[in-house]
Amino acid sequence: MRAKVPVGIEGVDKMLFGGIPKYNQVILAGGPGSGKTLFGFEFIYKGAKLGEPGLFFSLEEQPQMILENVKEAFSEFTDLDKLIEEKKIVIYDTSDIRAYLKNNGEGSMYSFGKLVSDIESVINATKAKRIVIDSLSLIKLLMPDELEYRNVSIDLVSTLRRLDITSLLIVEINTAEKSQIQFQPEFFIYDGIITMYSSGEEGANRALTLEIIKMRGTKHSRTTVPYEITSNGLGVLLLAQRGD
Amino acid sequence: MRAKVPVGIEGVDKMLFGGIPKYNQVILAGGPGSGKTLFGFEFIYKGAKLGEPGLFFSLEEQPQMILENVKEAFSEFTDLDKLIEEKKIVIYDTSDIRAYLKNNGEGSMYSFGKLVSDIESVINATKAKRIVIDSLSLIKLLMPDELEYRNVSIDLVSTLRRLDITSLLIVEINTAEKSQIQFQPEFFIYDGIITMYSSGEEGANRALTLEIIKMRGTKHSRTTVPYEITSNGLGVLLLAQRGD
Amino acid sequence: MRAKVPVGIEGVDKMLFGGIPKYNQVILAGGPGSGKTLFGFEFIYKGAKLGEPGLFFSLEEQPQMILENVKEAFSEFTDLDKLIEEKKIVIYDTSDIRAYLKNNGEGSMYSFGKLVSDIESVINATKAKRIVIDSLSLIKLLMPDELEYRNVSIDLVSTLRRLDITSLLIVEINTAEKSQIQFQPEFFIYDGIITMYSSGEEGANRALTLEIIKMRGTKHSRTTVPYEITSNGLGVLLLAQRGD
Amino acid sequence: MRAKVPVGIEGVDKMLFGGIPKYNQVILAGGPGSGKTLFGFEFIYKGAKLGEPGLFFSLEEQPQMILENVKEAFSEFTDLDKLIEEKKIVIYDTSDIRAYLKNNGEGSMYSFGKLVSDIESVINATKAKRIVIDSLSLIKLLMPDELEYRNVSIDLVSTLRRLDITSLLIVEINTAEKSQIQFQPEFFIYDGIITMYSSGEEGANRALTLEIIKMRGTKHSRTTVPYEITSNGLGVLLLAQRGD
Amino acid sequence: MRAKVPVGIEGVDKMLFGGIPKYNQVILAGGPGSGKTLFGFEFIYKGAKLGEPGLFFSLEEQPQMILENVKEAFSEFTDLDKLIEEKKIVIYDTSDIRAYLKNNGEGSMYSFGKLVSDIESVINATKAKRIVIDSLSLIKLLMPDELEYRNVSIDLVSTLRRLDITSLLIVEINTAEKSQIQFQPEFFIYDGIITMYSSGEEGANRALTLEIIKMRGTKHSRTTVPYEITSNGLGVLLLAQRGD
Amino acid sequence: MRAKVPVGIEGVDKMLFGGIPKYNQVILAGGPGSGKTLFGFEFIYKGAKLGEPGLFFSLEEQPQMILENVKEAFSEFTDLDKLIEEKKIVIYDTSDIRAYLKNNGEGSMYSFGKLVSDIESVINATKAKRIVIDSLSLIKLLMPDELEYRNVSIDLVSTLRRLDITSLLIVEINTAEKSQIQFQPEFFIYDGIITMYSSGEEGANRALTLEIIKMRGTKHSRTTVPYEITSNGLGVLLLAQRGD
Repeated sequence: MRAKVPVGIEGVDKMLFGGIPKYNQVILAGGPGSGKTLFGFEFIYKGAKLGEPGLFFSLEEQPQMILENVKEAFSEFTDLDKLIEEKKIVIYDTSDIRAYLKNNGEGSMYSFGKLVSDIESVINATKAKRIVIDSLSLIKLLMPDELEYRNVSIDLVSTLRRLDITSLLIVEINTAEKSQIQFQPEFFIYDGIITMYSSGEEGANRALTLEIIKMRGTKHSRTTVPYEITSNGLGVLLLAQRGD
Repeated sequence: MRAKVPVGIEGVDKMLFGGIPKYNQVILAGGPGSGKTLFGFEFIYKGAKLGEPGLFFSLEEQPQMILENVKEAFSEFTDLDKLIEEKKIVIYDTSDIRAYLKNNGEGSMYSFGKLVSDIESVINATKAKRIVIDSLSLIKLLMPDELEYRNVSIDLVSTLRRLDITSLLIVEINTAEKSQIQFQPEFFIYDGIITMYSSGEEGANRALTLEIIKMRGTKHSRTTVPYEITSNGLGVLLLAQRGD
Repeated sequence: MRAKVPVGIEGVDKMLFGGIPKYNQVILAGGPGSGKTLFGFEFIYKGAKLGEPGLFFSLEEQPQMILENVKEAFSEFTDLDKLIEEKKIVIYDTSDIRAYLKNNGEGSMYSFGKLVSDIESVINATKAKRIVIDSLSLIKLLMPDELEYRNVSIDLVSTLRRLDITSLLIVEINTAEKSQIQFQPEFFIYDGIITMYSSGEEGANRALTLEIIKMRGTKHSRTTVPYEITSNGLGVLLLAQRGD
Repeated sequence: MRAKVPVGIEGVDKMLFGGIPKYNQVILAGGPGSGKTLFGFEFIYKGAKLGEPGLFFSLEEQPQMILENVKEAFSEFTDLDKLIEEKKIVIYDTSDIRAYLKNNGEGSMYSFGKLVSDIESVINATKAKRIVIDSLSLIKLLMPDELEYRNVSIDLVSTLRRLDITSLLIVEINTAEKSQIQFQPEFFIYDGIITMYSSGEEGANRALTLEIIKMRGTKHSRTTVPYEITSNGLGVLLLAQRGD
Repeated sequence: MRAKVPVGIEGVDKMLFGGIPKYNQVILAGGPGSGKTLFGFEFIYKGAKLGEPGLFFSLEEQPQMILENVKEAFSEFTDLDKLIEEKKIVIYDTSDIRAYLKNNGEGSMYSFGKLVSDIESVINATKAKRIVIDSLSLIKLLMPDELEYRNVSIDLVSTLRRLDITSLLIVEINTAEKSQIQFQPEFFIYDGIITMYSSGEEGANRALTLEIIKMRGTKHSRTTVPYEITSNGLGVLLLAQRGD
Repeated sequence: MRAKVPVGIEGVDKMLFGGIPKYNQVILAGGPGSGKTLFGFEFIYKGAKLGEPGLFFSLEEQPQMILENVKEAFSEFTDLDKLIEEKKIVIYDTSDIRAYLKNNGEGSMYSFGKLVSDIESVINATKAKRIVIDSLSLIKLLMPDELEYRNVSIDLVSTLRRLDITSLLIVEINTAEKSQIQFQPEFFIYDGIITMYSSGEEGANRALTLEIIKMRGTKHSRTTVPYEITSNGLGVLLLAQRGD
């Protein structure tokens, strides 16, 4: 059996029969407000608690803000600052990505190529085993050309594979409704797809649900399950648990 | 807990467990006739009453007209003129935005860059803590290039963050129907999304409802709630209130 | 309360709590055969009867034809010729718009700019307080470039505002079905939107209905109401009236 | 009341309260197999029987073939050959339109301009009062540029108006289903729209129905009515007739 | 009555009141797996048995493969080889169409023009009365430009008309579902449209059905009828037959 | 009867009345997570067990990873390593396809042409009778031009036909829902289409089902059937089997 990296969210690990197969590069896709950043951060946090250094590439927000938001949501993750101090968790600041790119090259292709090689350097420096990139959507937004984005995506995947990384790559989907989700054409190059939904009937509460669409190297549940954002991390409610 | 900026609309603040987390840049999106400008103005007005100077960037209408429309709708906001006189509320006139841009540069990129730095100057001059831009849609309409609009959007967000502003950025959605709403691809760079709907069955009245889709840094309600435009500001009807 | 301009269609004025707020530039959008031209003409006619000079810019049909069609539909408007003779109603002929544009410039931008300044001249000459442009759709059809159309639209709105005009700007929507209507992206720059539908079930009669989607500066009904084209103008059937 | 041109199809004339208002340029739109050519030809034929010369511009088929197809469908129109001999009906052959255009100019704009002026010459020569163009769709198909097509359309409409013609302009819609019909954006420049449907449930027969969407200068029925292609022309079944 | 060419499929000929009107150029459109090639081949085969030479232009498959597939499906067509030997059936090999085009010119327009004139030569040489082109879709696939494809289509139709051919022109539609079918914009230049569906409910068998959408020069059934691929040709089940 | 190549998945072979007709080039299309790679690999594996050498072109994953994933899923295929050692199964590594293309040419057309001729060389060297390409989607993703992709596709099909290969060509469809599947326009050039679905109702498990849409040269079932991924290969549940 392929070695597995536990996500650290109990329900998700059960759905994956233990976790994400090691060295899989996995898309974490969801609509606005579905909690993708929190899921990604919990993956890094739980890895760090197991002693695996983790890197969180923040292209959208400043590290300080992300940390505050995570603490606000996951108030029971009381050892966060300690893990960051011990460099078990590194939040790499590329939040001002346009300035970042400007300092690293001129043509956009060069810059994004530099981003991939920077990711490689930071991984090497931190000995990270898990990384999260939040988000691929921002890279896509800044690239003038769909084809270039696909080339960068392929480079990124093959770089992460070469470095023996297990990753979650966050993608924003521009709808909150499950029924309207369309996968992006380049998704198939990744080893897995997890989707997070925030679906709502007219007049009713939106419900948060997630689903594992694809995961190379392991069986996985094909059920859409509800989850909550609790002070102790994401809580996924499996049917078996309900029946207990 | 992250500090919060109360919107001043009671129901909305309850849904946000106190208000918008400080320094969040929030999209306020809605269809035509949903009352986005009124929502935005109430946010500035209620801040001013708490002593926080607020800036209303009016790209669509002349300040005088906005003021008349707000007074027409919110007739109980009797201290509006006083607050404007005291410079607690500043309505910055860029309503003739094409003339404005013409006076500030030639190429459109330059002009829009100038718009962002003008916003910065006015914020500095007025010590504003809250701002509303009404609307991003007009900026988008005038830009020849989707990619440039995204670059300006990213600049705007990072400028507002740097200035410690809490903002509402108004976006028009070209449908009045909730079921047809599609989020714009660049929405994810913002810290929050509030949507205002004006939905209607065939033959029935349209009902005004709003929803908080996303808000970084706080829990929030995921219920779609009805609201009314009353003489004393927006009135949001929460279920708990109904049950009282 | 903002001053109001009564449309002259009783039901519509009730829905607007008196009429269109003065100086609002309002889109009148509807599918083919919904009676937009008749609505627009009645607005001019009723204004003229109140002593307010009105201008009808006819880009689609020759003035003589419009007059015949209006007389055919509204046979009880017996003083039409008199009002035209008294210059209370001016039907400005730009029906051969391509010839018109050819005589007024070469590049299309120049021509359309000229159209806006011509509108200004005629308004000044006639002291018109109400104008109708029938239709913006034809201008859009002739413009090679979406962006230019938006620029002309913004020029038009700011010119009409500067001239203290209250206007109805007719737009054709390419469906007769309410459920398929999509607002055009530039609609939000206008102060109001009224839509006219001609909806039909399979095998049943099409029913004419109208709705006020948006109106800055006043409360308005959000109900979709049926209307008929009668010999004495549009007849809108309000629920209250039904219950009487 | 505006003078009217009876179509000659009894039910349609009842729906139009006598016929098409004189000098209206009317779109006859329908899906494949709905009988548009037959409707158009009957309009010319019935006019010819009333003494009004009619022109049938055939861009799709050779005159001989059209005549055979009409005779096959309308076997009771036994005086067809006589009316053609008397030049009451002229079928103008532009069926090999690409050769036609090649002989009349080089650039496509020139050619289509020539087509419009040719139509004018033939109308003058034949003193035609009614014309049918079968079809605008072929002109559109051959034009490289949407904008040019719209310009030609506007030229065509203003030419036909100037010549005091009442016309039916045939347009193919690329679906047989009523529910999928989308009007083309330039339709609004025409004075009327009649649509012919060939709708079908799964497993059931397709039913032929027609509807008058718009007709300037007259009241008209807004009911969708069934029709049949009979040996004596189109038979439209009105509800009143059913109840008789 | 126009002379008719029996298709040779009994049910289809009944639906056409005897067959396809002579010299009609008919589109045979269907989704993948609907049996279009078999329908087309049966049309040629049945003509050959009546003594009419037929040409099958195979752009997709090698003649040997087509023959094998037809024999596999229609095992009772035992005289196929004999008819081919007698040149009553000619399968013209353009299956390696890219090589074919390379040998016949350089620019694509030239090549496709050559294809049309080649078709003419082979028709003249074989005295063919019926032809099938399998498929127009491949020609479209290889053409860089939609407009050129339409020009070639118009050339093809007028060439076939000039040569007194009755043809079936096969077109692939990229869905197997009837409800999703959209006709291509150039279909209206053809004299008839027959569609073949392979529709399926979730969890149920797909059913093969066909329908005659349009056929110039004859009445035709407007019913969608089921068919089977039997060892003795296509079997169409008409309602009358069911009731027998 | 055309000779057949058994797929080796019992249910699929029954649906195909023995297997895929020899020398057919078959599209295997499915959404993410539907098990396309496993299906393709089982086809190669079962062929190898029958003594037919098979080639698996891996453009997406490294051979080692694919092998691990197959072993993980199909734990009862215990002789996999032996078959690979005996060169009965060759997994050809083009997983770093961008590096591969860089080493084989410069312009993309040249590179992809080289890919097709490389496939030919490897087939010749290994005497392969069955090949799988995983996936055509990656080739499409990397090609800047839709037309070039179609040309490469046509080259590929004619090369494989010339080499007497029976192939499965894997294509990713960017939805997991059966109802949203749209075939790609070039699919018709292939001899068969098998689709794999992973469909799900809200709140329910996704079910895996497959369907044979088209298969030249044989009758085939038109039923959508459920399948499971078992330790001994894909298990297809036919209705007859259920009833047993």
